[in-house]
Amino acid sequence: MLQTRIIPPSANAHPYPLLIKSLLLSGSRYEKNREIVYRDTMRYSYATFNERVARLANVLTQAGVKAGDTVAVMDWDSHRYLECMFAVPMLGAVLHTVNVRLSPEQILYTMNHAEDRFVLVNSDFVALYQGIAGQLTTVTGTLLLSDNATAAGELPGSVGEYESLLAAAEPSYAFADFDENSVATTFYTTGTTGNPKGVYFTHRQLVLHTLSMATTLGSLDSIRLMGSDDVYMPITPMFHVHAWGVPYVATLLGVKQVYPGRYEPEMLCQLIKGEQVTFSHCVPTILQMLLAAPGAQGHDFNGMKVIIGGSALNRALYDAAKARGIQLTAAYGMSETCPLISCGYLNEELLAASELQRTAYRIKAGVPVPLVEAAIMDSEGRCLPADGETQGELVVRAPWLTQGYYREPEKGEELWARGWLHTGDVATLDAMGFIDIRDRIKDVIKTGGEWISSLELEDLISRQPAVREVAVVGVADQQWGERPFALVVAKDGQPLDAAIIKAHLTPFVEQGLINKWAIPSQIALVTEIPKTSVGKLDKKRIRVDLAQWQEAGSDFLSSL
Amino acid sequence: MLQTRIIPPSANAHPYPLLIKSLLLSGSRYEKNREIVYRDTMRYSYATFNERVARLANVLTQAGVKAGDTVAVMDWDSHRYLECMFAVPMLGAVLHTVNVRLSPEQILYTMNHAEDRFVLVNSDFVALYQGIAGQLTTVTGTLLLSDNATAAGELPGSVGEYESLLAAAEPSYAFADFDENSVATTFYTTGTTGNPKGVYFTHRQLVLHTLSMATTLGSLDSIRLMGSDDVYMPITPMFHVHAWGVPYVATLLGVKQVYPGRYEPEMLCQLIKGEQVTFSHCVPTILQMLLAAPGAQGHDFNGMKVIIGGSALNRALYDAAKARGIQLTAAYGMSETCPLISCGYLNEELLAASELQRTAYRIKAGVPVPLVEAAIMDSEGRCLPADGETQGELVVRAPWLTQGYYREPEKGEELWARGWLHTGDVATLDAMGFIDIRDRIKDVIKTGGEWISSLELEDLISRQPAVREVAVVGVADQQWGERPFALVVAKDGQPLDAAIIKAHLTPFVEQGLINKWAIPSQIALVTEIPKTSVGKLDKKRIRVDLAQWQEAGSDFLSSL
Repeated sequence: MLQTRIIPPSANAHPYPLLIKSLLLSGSRYEKNREIVYRDTMRYSYATFNERVARLANVLTQAGVKAGDTVAVMDWDSHRYLECMFAVPMLGAVLHTVNVRLSPEQILYTMNHAEDRFVLVNSDFVALYQGIAGQLTTVTGTLLLSDNATAAGELPGSVGEYESLLAAAEPSYAFADFDENSVATTFYTTGTTGNPKGVYFTHRQLVLHTLSMATTLGSLDSIRLMGSDDVYMPITPMFHVHAWGVPYVATLLGVKQVYPGRYEPEMLCQLIKGEQVTFSHCVPTILQMLLAAPGAQGHDFNGMKVIIGGSALNRALYDAAKARGIQLTAAYGMSETCPLISCGYLNEELLAASELQRTAYRIKAGVPVPLVEAAIMDSEGRCLPADGETQGELVVRAPWLTQGYYREPEKGEELWARGWLHTGDVATLDAMGFIDIRDRIKDVIKTGGEWISSLELEDLISRQPAVREVAVVGVADQQWGERPFALVVAKDGQPLDAAIIKAHLTPFVEQGLINKWAIPSQIALVTEIPKTSVGKLDKKRIRVDLAQWQEAGSDFLSSL
Repeated sequence: MLQTRIIPPSANAHPYPLLIKSLLLSGSRYEKNREIVYRDTMRYSYATFNERVARLANVLTQAGVKAGDTVAVMDWDSHRYLECMFAVPMLGAVLHTVNVRLSPEQILYTMNHAEDRFVLVNSDFVALYQGIAGQLTTVTGTLLLSDNATAAGELPGSVGEYESLLAAAEPSYAFADFDENSVATTFYTTGTTGNPKGVYFTHRQLVLHTLSMATTLGSLDSIRLMGSDDVYMPITPMFHVHAWGVPYVATLLGVKQVYPGRYEPEMLCQLIKGEQVTFSHCVPTILQMLLAAPGAQGHDFNGMKVIIGGSALNRALYDAAKARGIQLTAAYGMSETCPLISCGYLNEELLAASELQRTAYRIKAGVPVPLVEAAIMDSEGRCLPADGETQGELVVRAPWLTQGYYREPEKGEELWARGWLHTGDVATLDAMGFIDIRDRIKDVIKTGGEWISSLELEDLISRQPAVREVAVVGVADQQWGERPFALVVAKDGQPLDAAIIKAHLTPFVEQGLINKWAIPSQIALVTEIPKTSVGKLDKKRIRVDLAQWQEAGSDFLSSL
């Protein structure tokens, strides 16, 4: 270690740890009258927001919650969830954002593994909670979240209902300073195998993530994606990496925030129109659903900016959104990375390029945001050239990456092999710094010694006009090791079969976009493709289904 | 201290200290072809900038500079200075930005006090350096900075000329990680009494300051003050709080940067026009000078955004700038605060207000930027109400404030009394969060961005044998902000006038005890000077009297 100069601070100096409370206190002063809106049910000012966070802190303290405890939340996206995102960590406790789309068994597993002490439960999940309450090993109390204060519910161990308790609590709380490396949030990520794994983020990490994201959204691109005068609504669940951390950025800037509860397309459209939402973020499937919603027909979304992450953004969706007035920008990250790693951006060269080229870069994973280091690595840990062609595993460093998996040190060491966080994604890096995600390492199809990107194949197949949705996975093959297998959903009433898709893919082979062995051996027309709890293609389940079908001796091509 | 949950990181996890190298490495990838420009002399790309920082690190290492050493720079604003702002701290060394406008005695004092080991000297300062070299107690080597590589100069202890050495050095350097609390920069601030005091900032502090400033400039206001597509030129010296830290922000965003050398109005105008500068910052007097420059006449500055700090921004200047197409925004800070504390901003209420009201708020000191806490305090340490009326000393907290004064622990403890940094400014805070600076607690006179100690001037004037008593206060001056005004009482029967006092002060300028602009513009011979009840000069009353006399149209000089 270099012998740098370190001077002990003056005896009186304030050390200023990086704490989440600073985000709230900073942001609340810019626009005291700006609103936080929840559906058509609730709206209040930032001044009130500040008070409600203090009231919640008093309620939780009264209920026995202490620093170091884990407090779980089972809720749809709401102003109450936002209040928990501040009050719980500001008490020095840990917020566990429970993924309510997991199976009851998985939810039970995560709550016991995280050692949850106290649980806030939306009335919609009371039945679910009742089903697991008897097996929860660490919970000592619960609190009911409800849009209707009179709906008591039958919540085991309840200390009361949120709004009534808040109304009775003191509107101020002297939040203490503590170590910025204290854990603030935790949640569980479902991998391809085994139990969900717990990631966790400290106050310091969330503050730094917030500042870098604010810089990214405000300053990097020629378009200001979110500034103080935007209106923000997440369409990514708050249990999913704290809605990508954007509520912390919005609060820091004093931006008007709109929370839609559960994702009903009509309500989303109504809020976008009525509250004049200008900035949001979601996975591609949610945007597709939104654009197709009856309530969205004829509506001009002009000026709305949406960040797409979670899955690759394809050109068809980019163009469809653009035709409706929505500017899409791709971003990349994952649960382990808090999540922001990279964001779309048009540099000077691209701004001067053709529309087609600009779009090609808007839908890539973007450039690493401030303070992120990215590299691609081979399986031996060698860094590979950033030539836009060489593929390797994307590895990253940043000040806000999970430092391991909760209570699973060996998995954390694997995640962090050689001092880089391994994303499990295959990517290229080009000379302009752009990351292009080619596939999950697990989803890459290895056929006859060549790698085929399932994502690339899905993108090409999705350009066939009759295709509504497509998933490609590798299936075991005696001769080639693996061969691509495509599941395709046709648009209503449109003719589609394997021959049409093969004919659609042949020109791409002639253009050199793919090799001829990338054309799937088998193509199955299905009515639905399995999705994960966060709306991504569930390739794990698809593989299991296909393996079962194969064992049963089905012939897919003939089934079309 | 609360018992929060702290989880030791995975054995393999990368700790990611906040280091200045991350700012350079992050920013250099966004716009590799963007330019760094120095006058009409030099221009190169960010890719080259990166290489030159590595080359400089190799040159300094070769010259014996080690982590923990202090490296001083005596230069005008240049690309070379920018390179030093990165290379020196990235080596783990401390950058001392020497205030070349101080007297030679003061420069000597600061260089010995900071224990400078190595000095980079612009050819314009070689004569000055020769004059003090013999008394420098810690310097072991120097390096010549020159626009003309053949101008050898006679620099004592020189290891060579910057550009030639860089050209011969390796263009890469493996910068190590180290503790983020390592000191990165230091410089000296001249107060009301005594020797200049050394403030210092760590890597962590400068990274956090950069992120908060980027957020402020990019996202807070309805106007994006600086985004990636702006062109930046500082008109605040780089020795003055690292040009307010903006070069670090510009580099993080990959913004085109223009450095003007010494401040010649014609060159500034030429660069603004030729390089299409859109964002700058300066003290009011510099902007006045710029607008009045012959080369600026007839030029439309339309779209240019300028932050004004260092002295209060008055409405006359705001309007004059606006008439020329320049949007001014006031900001507030000081050497001790890195410097950014607050920045002008129009919230929703003000955007809807009258033009006059908006202007009134644009010229105030603004709202505290993200992560800054501000309060006003009475002399007993009680926080005063934020009612826009009650005046008190402005005290602040932020993660980037100097943690003391170098090698003067007792002064650091005073600065940080009660855990708040005391700005020495009297201010009000209003309900919208705006800071309005009302006065200095002490009686420093600010002229053309420089500080003059009234006590020091009184001391020197009182040495004139015919002077019985003297008081110096600052009076408003359209060109310079403030100019010193001296009230003098003559000893009985002795001849005294303004010319005698000016002649008496001139040798002190020549000796370097004071700068020539410290000589009072106006000197009034009076029979008595108002005193307080405890016999001190009553400067408050003097100011009131002078204001009345000025209103009455008196001409003081003629009155002598």
